[in-house]
Amino acid sequence: MFFASDNAGPVHPQIMNRIVQDNAGHAMPYGNDPVMSEVRQAIRRTFEAPEAEVYLVATGTAANALALACYTQPFDTIFCSNVAHIHQDECNAPEFYAGGAKLTLVPGGDKMTPKTLHAAISDEEKRGVHGPQRGPVSITQVTERGEVYTLDELRALTAVAKDFDLPVHLDGARFANAVAALDCTAAEMTWKSGVDIVSFGGTKNGCMGVEAVVMFDPDKAWEFELRRKRGAHLFSKHRYLSSQMAAYLDGELWMETAAAANANAQRLAAGLRDKGAEFLHQPDANMIFAAFPRAAHKRLHAAGAKYYVWEGEVEGDDPDEMLAARLVCDWSISDAQIDQFLGYL
Amino acid sequence: MFFASDNAGPVHPQIMNRIVQDNAGHAMPYGNDPVMSEVRQAIRRTFEAPEAEVYLVATGTAANALALACYTQPFDTIFCSNVAHIHQDECNAPEFYAGGAKLTLVPGGDKMTPKTLHAAISDEEKRGVHGPQRGPVSITQVTERGEVYTLDELRALTAVAKDFDLPVHLDGARFANAVAALDCTAAEMTWKSGVDIVSFGGTKNGCMGVEAVVMFDPDKAWEFELRRKRGAHLFSKHRYLSSQMAAYLDGELWMETAAAANANAQRLAAGLRDKGAEFLHQPDANMIFAAFPRAAHKRLHAAGAKYYVWEGEVEGDDPDEMLAARLVCDWSISDAQIDQFLGYL
Amino acid sequence: MFFASDNAGPVHPQIMNRIVQDNAGHAMPYGNDPVMSEVRQAIRRTFEAPEAEVYLVATGTAANALALACYTQPFDTIFCSNVAHIHQDECNAPEFYAGGAKLTLVPGGDKMTPKTLHAAISDEEKRGVHGPQRGPVSITQVTERGEVYTLDELRALTAVAKDFDLPVHLDGARFANAVAALDCTAAEMTWKSGVDIVSFGGTKNGCMGVEAVVMFDPDKAWEFELRRKRGAHLFSKHRYLSSQMAAYLDGELWMETAAAANANAQRLAAGLRDKGAEFLHQPDANMIFAAFPRAAHKRLHAAGAKYYVWEGEVEGDDPDEMLAARLVCDWSISDAQIDQFLGYL
Amino acid sequence: MFFASDNAGPVHPQIMNRIVQDNAGHAMPYGNDPVMSEVRQAIRRTFEAPEAEVYLVATGTAANALALACYTQPFDTIFCSNVAHIHQDECNAPEFYAGGAKLTLVPGGDKMTPKTLHAAISDEEKRGVHGPQRGPVSITQVTERGEVYTLDELRALTAVAKDFDLPVHLDGARFANAVAALDCTAAEMTWKSGVDIVSFGGTKNGCMGVEAVVMFDPDKAWEFELRRKRGAHLFSKHRYLSSQMAAYLDGELWMETAAAANANAQRLAAGLRDKGAEFLHQPDANMIFAAFPRAAHKRLHAAGAKYYVWEGEVEGDDPDEMLAARLVCDWSISDAQIDQFLGYL
Repeated sequence: MFFASDNAGPVHPQIMNRIVQDNAGHAMPYGNDPVMSEVRQAIRRTFEAPEAEVYLVATGTAANALALACYTQPFDTIFCSNVAHIHQDECNAPEFYAGGAKLTLVPGGDKMTPKTLHAAISDEEKRGVHGPQRGPVSITQVTERGEVYTLDELRALTAVAKDFDLPVHLDGARFANAVAALDCTAAEMTWKSGVDIVSFGGTKNGCMGVEAVVMFDPDKAWEFELRRKRGAHLFSKHRYLSSQMAAYLDGELWMETAAAANANAQRLAAGLRDKGAEFLHQPDANMIFAAFPRAAHKRLHAAGAKYYVWEGEVEGDDPDEMLAARLVCDWSISDAQIDQFLGYL
Repeated sequence: MFFASDNAGPVHPQIMNRIVQDNAGHAMPYGNDPVMSEVRQAIRRTFEAPEAEVYLVATGTAANALALACYTQPFDTIFCSNVAHIHQDECNAPEFYAGGAKLTLVPGGDKMTPKTLHAAISDEEKRGVHGPQRGPVSITQVTERGEVYTLDELRALTAVAKDFDLPVHLDGARFANAVAALDCTAAEMTWKSGVDIVSFGGTKNGCMGVEAVVMFDPDKAWEFELRRKRGAHLFSKHRYLSSQMAAYLDGELWMETAAAANANAQRLAAGLRDKGAEFLHQPDANMIFAAFPRAAHKRLHAAGAKYYVWEGEVEGDDPDEMLAARLVCDWSISDAQIDQFLGYL
Repeated sequence: MFFASDNAGPVHPQIMNRIVQDNAGHAMPYGNDPVMSEVRQAIRRTFEAPEAEVYLVATGTAANALALACYTQPFDTIFCSNVAHIHQDECNAPEFYAGGAKLTLVPGGDKMTPKTLHAAISDEEKRGVHGPQRGPVSITQVTERGEVYTLDELRALTAVAKDFDLPVHLDGARFANAVAALDCTAAEMTWKSGVDIVSFGGTKNGCMGVEAVVMFDPDKAWEFELRRKRGAHLFSKHRYLSSQMAAYLDGELWMETAAAANANAQRLAAGLRDKGAEFLHQPDANMIFAAFPRAAHKRLHAAGAKYYVWEGEVEGDDPDEMLAARLVCDWSISDAQIDQFLGYL
Repeated sequence: MFFASDNAGPVHPQIMNRIVQDNAGHAMPYGNDPVMSEVRQAIRRTFEAPEAEVYLVATGTAANALALACYTQPFDTIFCSNVAHIHQDECNAPEFYAGGAKLTLVPGGDKMTPKTLHAAISDEEKRGVHGPQRGPVSITQVTERGEVYTLDELRALTAVAKDFDLPVHLDGARFANAVAALDCTAAEMTWKSGVDIVSFGGTKNGCMGVEAVVMFDPDKAWEFELRRKRGAHLFSKHRYLSSQMAAYLDGELWMETAAAANANAQRLAAGLRDKGAEFLHQPDANMIFAAFPRAAHKRLHAAGAKYYVWEGEVEGDDPDEMLAARLVCDWSISDAQIDQFLGYL
């Protein structure tokens, strides 16, 4: 019963097999391995973007921080939700990579709206040289609260960015889960909706540790390469990043694992709903924020279930008090584990 | 015939097997996986340092830049050889991680001497607040030219550093090759010789992509963790770093692969010597810098041999002109490949 | 009728005379001028702090950014009001000097309260290595909206900081105006109230361009000097900074000019109140935020009055619409100018 | 007898008078003062560059670091002499402002040659993404050893830079002394010789603390303004920078003070030569590096003469041992002081 995070699951067998298979003999290092060519073509096909450039790194934070750094001057500010991963969970990595730039937090929780974003952007750069300048807009899709922007919502946000002539970054650590939830294409959720650069996550969705940065405007490609090296994120034995990503894209495995993770969450959410749990956020993809009584938490803890208690303390007297949990499903969780969890409720 | 770099070889089967074996089920992310405890104990045992702290990252540049950043203020300068990897091959990563610090290049080539190091340190911080302040000394062992400092040489360098009260970093991307060459212990080559923090390389010596930073003074441990996260080098699926390092240390595999790589280089060097090649540097470990006639280079290139032409151009008329090559052997190279290479000479 | 800013007024004659007087002959550069010794003693006397260290810089942003950098690690976050000068008006200088650290904005406007500050601090560093770490608290006194924290309010804020073991910085660009408003001593408003480091402003209050950073804990003194030099803020002809500050402190001129500026603002505020203006903030010192009808704004603009229209647009139809103005008084403004301004209302 | 530095002399009376004169009433802050318009026109006229942009800062290090930052990416390296002020005397400010870029030191002492510069540039960027990329060339004129590049020498250096398509920065902390020495125009020594951006020094040559950054390509102007503000170098009471520079340029005062300083040095050098001193460098402008016997040093020290002993220790037995001195003349030094100094030799 492991619902603590989708970054705790195993590597998908097809990906592990590909790593093992690509392990024979020598391969040119630093991204010059032949598998990387395969990855490049697969990404371009997947995103319907024959000009796109693609680079691999091993962590989501690296993907985000490097992608943003290419579009941010040190005197700029990056616009994002006040619960964005780049703000809350990257220990100032975006600020570090962007040379000391600022993040402007759009209030209102996980989903920015055209109105809140417009207000936040309008409010900056009013002070000429005194305040920070307007930098990129970063959108997290799936949000950190498990919600998914519809394509219309996405387009409305990027339209605001474009009104101010600002580039748009998509933090897609759970990109696949969002595409699966929306039943759309990778292209529709990115450049067709006004996104300029994407962190295309693999790690949380069955890979070992790989994220692709996809740049629809190749002008920044060389700068990205230099920033990646300077950030110490250029792998010498790069072929093992390539192999993961190649297997992940091959036969649309990425969609398969995402669909499985989302289905797991739907099964869990349905069960929670049946048991009277209260949802803090719409469980659009593979994350659930739901409250249920302390007594149930106690039973689950005793049984060894792993998840974050989001609000409140399991220790306490009132057995009926509702405490919120964050429950994340990865592709590898079985129906039996979910049902076991629900049984303790 | 692949002698371009030791980072181009495959993952050792014992390491790959361990990765596959540790792939079952869920594991806590971000270094809280149980295998990391095993690694910590193994490192402490290997280095005879029960208080040491150890952290894993995926690239040698990350290990170096993060280790140095913990000991460098932004107004400091780091002392290193003028051909050090941290100077020539890390695209300003040490400067980036140390907040804009400087590198002071000790002249004289790959091996610093107590005299050149003393002169370089003496020459800085003479200008009070105007110049950079003296920061750590970074020693590359094996050097970038394939030479190995003896323990006496190492101790003489760290004694100079200690005279100025400066910490010492060891860039051990090829740590195992040096230990094998010196037939000493990990402890002897580090804290027993005055080293404070080590980049203990795994990637070039049979791993997929893992380096351990070993801190003999645990005071900087938490700072290292924060800098690692801020640098985007904290892996969520950390267990796969742990598994590599666990297998690498298990049964002293690291010494076995290093001994194999060094033996390969000795075989190759012996053959080169027999054929009249001239050595630019003493081939102490697994790297050879040797010059041989253009005609031989042409034959090797035609046969598909991979290595760097270090000085000169293969294209050219005089078949007898001596051109230098850099030849690096990893553990996986067979005697047959070496003999094949020598055959073309 | 110049109410745009207190940084637009002239240098006080006593200060200018001192500069001229100290201009004879040669003086040791870089802070080794004899006048600096006089300044050091005067600051220690003024702040009743015989151990304090003091350094001069030429801009308030430099004073703030350098002071904060000495107490901030790059993975930290600085706590300040959401309208603090360090956030809104320094173009990312604090982030730059602190190596990419973050600012956590305490909501609620110009004055932080123990409750809002406590909540903001509590909310950070919950995420272990993932989020930023808690850094210093920066308090702006006079606030950017012209209000002055009482000593009790100050002490309540620093008590919160101390509960979390965090250092406290006071941005005193208008330090003198606050001391004058509170009728307290410099010591009472700083170390006696729990402040660790102060930006003691001179520029806005009659100097040409000088701010003193006063450190009650001299442990960081040498680091400050290095950061000042690295930031390019160490003056070679430092004596002219010293002369300004010496004259400013001499005979408590700083209190005299601050009292004059505050009195000017009180006269202006009284007049505005009489004319029915509405106050957005309590005009505690020398800044006024007040709304009055568009028609009056139009008359003032036509007459050449200089001030910021804070909310709304002077162009517009409704002559009765209330538009807010920011009006700042420096020491040099005459009663006649104030009365002239009030005449146009 | 003050020969320690040209930054220790007084402000020229014409400059001080202008400051006092411009002190009346209010003036718009942050560079919007009317005197700045006068400065802009005077600089354009002086440099025969009607499109040039000009900004004022208060220190030479700020001028250099900000100018270079506009032309340097954080993964670049800046080429300069190994005794350049930006390397030895700015406590990592250029590295700080350029986001952690590197300095490549061209060996051979104060004057770079086309050959040494070409070799240094050629040697970088050979390693693709692994090493730093080629950044601007920075030339110090007058050099830190008191020598002056001829226009031919300058043009030969900038031609090398242009061959590699690199921008050229001139550190002109002693710009006027060089122009006076060469008897050329400001234009000839800058854009007509291939210089892109200049630090035009005022502080050492009679001002209180002001340097102009002159950009012949105005494309970077706004970036410069933002970097200046972010670096905390934008003065609120900017008019006092403007006044200095206006007076400095007015009637070519800058040439007059430079000619005086150079003449002082020539008188001193002639006397030294007569007394048998040995010159370490050609005293082309207002700095002298010369060796004379210890006994003379002792007499000078006893008489209170101020200068740097460049090599050797005044304490010591052998009265005939030659010790080198650095002697710098500013415009304000009288013939009597020079003759008094020479008398002690």
